Amino acid sequence: MKIVKFLFLLCITIISIESTAQISTKPDKGNWSKGASERFKGDVWVEYFINDTISDFVSSRVLFEPGARSNWHKHSGKQIVFAVEGEGYLKEKGKPITILKKGDVIVIKPGTIHSHGSINKRFTQGIMMNDVGKKETTTWLNPVLEEELLEKK
Amino acid sequence: MKIVKFLFLLCITIISIESTAQISTKPDKGNWSKGASERFKGDVWVEYFINDTISDFVSSRVLFEPGARSNWHKHSGKQIVFAVEGEGYLKEKGKPITILKKGDVIVIKPGTIHSHGSINKRFTQGIMMNDVGKKETTTWLNPVLEEELLEKK
Repeated sequence: MKIVKFLFLLCITIISIESTAQISTKPDKGNWSKGASERFKGDVWVEYFINDTISDFVSSRVLFEPGARSNWHKHSGKQIVFAVEGEGYLKEKGKPITILKKGDVIVIKPGTIHSHGSINKRFTQGIMMNDVGKKETTTWLNPVLEEELLEKK
Repeated sequence: MKIVKFLFLLCITIISIESTAQISTKPDKGNWSKGASERFKGDVWVEYFINDTISDFVSSRVLFEPGARSNWHKHSGKQIVFAVEGEGYLKEKGKPITILKKGDVIVIKPGTIHSHGSINKRFTQGIMMNDVGKKETTTWLNPVLEEELLEKK
C-alpha cells in the first residue's frame, strides 16, 4: 500500500507542477501557439483569428512574456498594432523605441524593419494586416540585441 | 407525369433563386451574421473573431453591401477601423464624411457619435476595439438620413 500512496502523491505533485507551469506561460483560454525560437526570444504566444488571402486580411493577437521580443522583421503590407493589455514596445530600425500602453495604436508602413516586445511586463497586442496573399508576407531577419533597443536611430 | 415535371422545374427554379440570393448577399465563407435592421440600413454582415472581456479586446470585420450603413452610434472605448476591401466611409457627427479605401486606417475616439457604411461599392472593414467589458459598450442611436451624410459639420 505504501508504494501505491507514494505513486499517488507523485502523480498529484507532477499534475500540480504542470498546471502551475501552464498558468505562468501559455494563456489558458484561446487557440494560442508558441512563437518559434528562430523568430522570437523568450516566451511569445500567437493567436490567429483569420488569415484571409482572398479578401487580403489578417487579424491576430500576440502575447509577450516580460523580456520577450521578436527578431527584426518586415511585412510586405501595412500592419496595425493595438496595445491591449500590459506594456510593451515597438522598435523601428533607425528610430527611438516607442513604449506602448493599453489603448495605444501604431501603424507600421510596408517594408519597415522592426521588432515587437516587452521589457518588464507582460504585453498583449492586437494586430491587423494586409497584403497577405504573397509567399513572403513577413521576412524574418536577425535577433535584436539588447543594445539595439536603446539606440536612438 | 406533367405535374411531376412541373414540380421538378419549380423546385429547380426555387433552388437557383435561393442560391443566387445567397451569393449576392451573405459572404460564402466565415462565421457571418446579419446586422439587425434596428441598427443597420441595407445588407450588413458582421463576423466576430473574438470578444474577450477579460483582456478587454474585440476583433471583428464588417461587410457593407452598396448603399448599406449603420445607425448613428458610439462606443465607450476606442475603435480602430481598417479598410480591407472595396470602398466605404466613416461619418463622424459634426465632421465631413471620410471616404475609406483599401489600406486606410482610422481611429475613433471613445464617445464619438459616428456611422460606418458604403455608397456604391461593397466595403469590408476590419475592427479592433477596447473597453468591452461594460454593459453598454455600444450605444445605438437614430438611423442616418441621406442628407446627413453630405453635411460638412
